[in-house]
Amino acid sequence: MNDTSSKASASPAEPKGKRPPVLVDGVTLNGPTLDIREAESFLRDAMPIIMEEAVWKATDVKEKVCEWRSPEQLKDLLDLELREGGEAHPQILQRCRDAIRYSVKTGHPRFFNQLYAGMDPYSLVGRFITEAINPSLYTYEVAPVFLLTEEAVLQKMIEIIGWQEGGDGIFSPGGSVSNMYAVNVARYHHCPDVKVLGLSALPRLVMFTSQECHYSVAKAAAFLGIGTNNVYVIPSDKRGKMIPAEFEKQVQRAKDEGALPFMVNATAGTTVLGAFDPLEEIADICERHNLWMHVDACWGGGALMSKKHRYLLQGIHRANSVAWNPHKMLMAGLQCCAFMVRDKTNLLQRCHSAQASYLFQQDKFYDVSYDTGDKSIQCSRKPDAFKFWLMWKAIGTKALVYIVAPVVKERMMKKGSMMVGYQPHGDKANFFRQIIISPQVSREDMDFLLDQIHSLGMDL
Amino acid sequence: MNDTSSKASASPAEPKGKRPPVLVDGVTLNGPTLDIREAESFLRDAMPIIMEEAVWKATDVKEKVCEWRSPEQLKDLLDLELREGGEAHPQILQRCRDAIRYSVKTGHPRFFNQLYAGMDPYSLVGRFITEAINPSLYTYEVAPVFLLTEEAVLQKMIEIIGWQEGGDGIFSPGGSVSNMYAVNVARYHHCPDVKVLGLSALPRLVMFTSQECHYSVAKAAAFLGIGTNNVYVIPSDKRGKMIPAEFEKQVQRAKDEGALPFMVNATAGTTVLGAFDPLEEIADICERHNLWMHVDACWGGGALMSKKHRYLLQGIHRANSVAWNPHKMLMAGLQCCAFMVRDKTNLLQRCHSAQASYLFQQDKFYDVSYDTGDKSIQCSRKPDAFKFWLMWKAIGTKALVYIVAPVVKERMMKKGSMMVGYQPHGDKANFFRQIIISPQVSREDMDFLLDQIHSLGMDL
Repeated sequence: MNDTSSKASASPAEPKGKRPPVLVDGVTLNGPTLDIREAESFLRDAMPIIMEEAVWKATDVKEKVCEWRSPEQLKDLLDLELREGGEAHPQILQRCRDAIRYSVKTGHPRFFNQLYAGMDPYSLVGRFITEAINPSLYTYEVAPVFLLTEEAVLQKMIEIIGWQEGGDGIFSPGGSVSNMYAVNVARYHHCPDVKVLGLSALPRLVMFTSQECHYSVAKAAAFLGIGTNNVYVIPSDKRGKMIPAEFEKQVQRAKDEGALPFMVNATAGTTVLGAFDPLEEIADICERHNLWMHVDACWGGGALMSKKHRYLLQGIHRANSVAWNPHKMLMAGLQCCAFMVRDKTNLLQRCHSAQASYLFQQDKFYDVSYDTGDKSIQCSRKPDAFKFWLMWKAIGTKALVYIVAPVVKERMMKKGSMMVGYQPHGDKANFFRQIIISPQVSREDMDFLLDQIHSLGMDL
Repeated sequence: MNDTSSKASASPAEPKGKRPPVLVDGVTLNGPTLDIREAESFLRDAMPIIMEEAVWKATDVKEKVCEWRSPEQLKDLLDLELREGGEAHPQILQRCRDAIRYSVKTGHPRFFNQLYAGMDPYSLVGRFITEAINPSLYTYEVAPVFLLTEEAVLQKMIEIIGWQEGGDGIFSPGGSVSNMYAVNVARYHHCPDVKVLGLSALPRLVMFTSQECHYSVAKAAAFLGIGTNNVYVIPSDKRGKMIPAEFEKQVQRAKDEGALPFMVNATAGTTVLGAFDPLEEIADICERHNLWMHVDACWGGGALMSKKHRYLLQGIHRANSVAWNPHKMLMAGLQCCAFMVRDKTNLLQRCHSAQASYLFQQDKFYDVSYDTGDKSIQCSRKPDAFKFWLMWKAIGTKALVYIVAPVVKERMMKKGSMMVGYQPHGDKANFFRQIIISPQVSREDMDFLLDQIHSLGMDL
C-alpha cells in the first residue's frame, strides 16, 4: 500500500473492541470489516468537496458544464487501474475532485438535455439519505419508511392519472423496464399460462406501437421473447402522433394472419418530436379489439400535473397501464420511474411473483400486503420514490405544476405540434454552431439538432 | 403553502436573472425552474443531519438498528399525504430525521443481514458524488468518467474470474436482472433469430438450475417468455450443491422430449445454504451438450478475491457468463451488480441493441466503442460501478481480500459445507430467541433460523 497509516484503519484485522472478535482458523468472525468511524476524517474532508464541486459549482452558470477530454486523455488523468495497495486520503480526495471535474454537470443551467436536467435540493437530500441508509425494498420489516412513501407517491400519481377506483404500481429502474413490465402484464392478462408454459405453447403474439415510439419497446419485445418482427409499427402523422386508422388496420392484419394481438404501446411525449398519441381514439380501438392499452408517458406524464396541459393526455384514464418517470419533467433525479396498472386484482403480484419462502412468509406479525417485493422482477430494489416524496412534501403540488409548465411549453415550441412554426427561426443555427464548437455539449442537444436537420432536409 | 417565505425560492416564476427569461404566452421559457442556490440554506441545514443521523449514529453499535412501528403507526408518524402546498424547511428537516429514525440501519454492526451489510466510507462518498452529478450511462460524451470507471472495474473483475482473453460486461440494476441478461444472451447465442422472430417460432427451450438456486431464475424464465415449467430443476445434495449426474439426466430428458436445452444456471453461493455448485463438473457437462454455462455468483463471487477461498469457485473461468454483485460481500452499496460474458464478439451489443439513431450515432468525433449504452436493456442507467472503483482505489485489492475472508469463513461456518458441524452448537437457540423478541430483527436472520429449524427437523 502507498500509505499504510491511512489504510490500516480499513483493515478488519484490527477491530476496535466493540464486540469481542471470534477467531476461527485465524480469521476474525463477527468482527467489524470496514469500520466507518475509523474513516471519519475521510468523510469529513470529502463532504465539503462534494458540496462545493458537485453541488454549488456544478449548478453555477459561470462554471463549465463539462471539461471535455478524449477517452485516451481521460484514462490517463483518472489513473483507472485498480492495484494491490490502496491510496492515501489526499490522493483519493483528488480523485473525487477529478471525477467531478471531468463529468458532465447535468444540473447545470446550460445542460439543455431535453429529457432530464436540473437539480432539486429536496430530492438531492432524499437521495443522500437513502444512499447512507442503503435500504432494499423487499418487505415492510426491512424498509418500512421507503415502502410506505413509495405507496403514497404511487397512490397520488394514480389519482392524477384519473383512475378513480385506484390501481397498483411499482417503481422500476428505468422507463425501459417499465415498458417491459407492461408487455409482461399485458400478455399475462391475455394468457395467464404464459408464465408457466412460455411463449412456445401460445399462438404468435403481436403488439403495436407508433413509428415514433421509444426504442425500449423494441428492446422489450426482444427481451421478453415476443420478437421485434411481432411489433407492428403504426405510421404517425407529421406531428409525430399515431394515426388511429392505421392502428386499426394493423390490428386487422394481425388477426387475418392468425396471430393474437394483445397490446398497444401509446406514447405520451415521444422522444424525438415530443408528440402525444391520441389516447381517446386509441382507447376506443383497444375496447373494440380487446387489447391492453399501455401508455408510455415516461416523458410526457409530467404534463398531467398541469390543468392547462393535461389535455395532451386526454383519455389516459382509460389505459390499462402507464409508465411515468418523475426523474424527467419533474426533476426528481435519476432514477425515479413509476409503472402503474389500473387493475385491482393483484395482477402485478400474480404475474411476477416467485413466492420465495425465505423472504415472503405469509405468517408474519403484520399485514403482509405491505411486502410488495414479489410484485417486482427485481430482488434488491432501490428506494427511488422517497426522494420524490420528500421533494413533493417540500414544494407541494402547486410548485410541481410550476416546474412542469415551462418545460411543456418549451417542448411544444421546439417540437411536436409547434415544430413547423419553430423551424424557420434563424437563431437555431447559432445554437447548432455553439454545440459543435463548445465542449459544453449535451447528447440531447446534438440529437435535437440532428433531428431538426433531418426533418428540414426531408421537407426540402 | 404553509410557509411561503421558504417556498417562494422554489418558484420558476422568479428567476434571478442569470439568463434573460423568454416569455411565451406568459410562460417563462429557458428560465431556471427550481434553483438549487435559492435553497442553499436548506441543503446546509440538512447535511449535518444526514451525517449525524444516517451515517454516524446509523453505524454506532450503541444506537438501535431500527425503531419498529406498525404500518398504521408509521403512516401517522410520517404524515405521508402529498398536498397542494409545500412545507417549511424546519418541517422538512424533521421529516428527514423521522425517515432516518424509522428506517432499518443496514450499516449498523448488529444488522446481520447475510447478503449485504455494513457501510464503506469510500463507497458512500462515491455515491454522494454520483447522486449530485446525476449522470446516465448512455454514451461517452454524456458520462465519460462513469463509463471509463465502469470499464476499468469490469476488466478487473473479468481478470479475477480468470478469463485470460478478456470478455465484456455491463452493470445492471440487480442480480435478478443480471440473471435475465444471462438467459437472453444464452438463447440468442443458440438461436439469433429469437430477437426478431420471438420464441413462438422456435422449438421449446429448456434451461437448468438447482433446487437451491435463487428465485430470480424462475422470475427470469417467466419474464423472458421461457415459462417456469421449462426450467428443469436439478436436485442438490445435503450441503446444497447441484448433483452433476442429476443435471445430465435432466439434459437427456429434455432432449428425449424433443426440446432444445440451451443453458444452465450454476450457483456460487446459494441464498439459503451458501453452497457452491461444482463448476468444473458442470462445465464438463455443458461442453458435452453444447450448453451455455451461467454462474450466478451474485453472493459468492466475492470469494474470488481470496486466494484461500477461491477454490470454492474452481472452474468459473470455463463459464460463458457470470453475475457478481460487489454490493454484497464486498460492501460496495446497493446496487452494484456486474453481468459479464466471456464472449469477445460483441454479443451483448448484438443481442440487446436497438440502434436508436438519436442516441448512438456512428459518426461521432471519438471512438464510439465507448458508447456502451446499447449493450443494455435499459436506457437511463445509473453509474453503479463508480463507488466500487473509488472504494477499490482507496483500500486496494489486498484490503478487499481482507473484507471477504471473514465473511466467507462465517458463512461457511454457519451454512454450506460446514453446516452439519455447526448445527449442534447450542448457542444458536439463544440467537433464535433474540431475533423473535427483539425489534432489532433482520429478514435474513429470521430466514436463517427458520432454515436451520427446518433442516434440523428433517434430520430428526
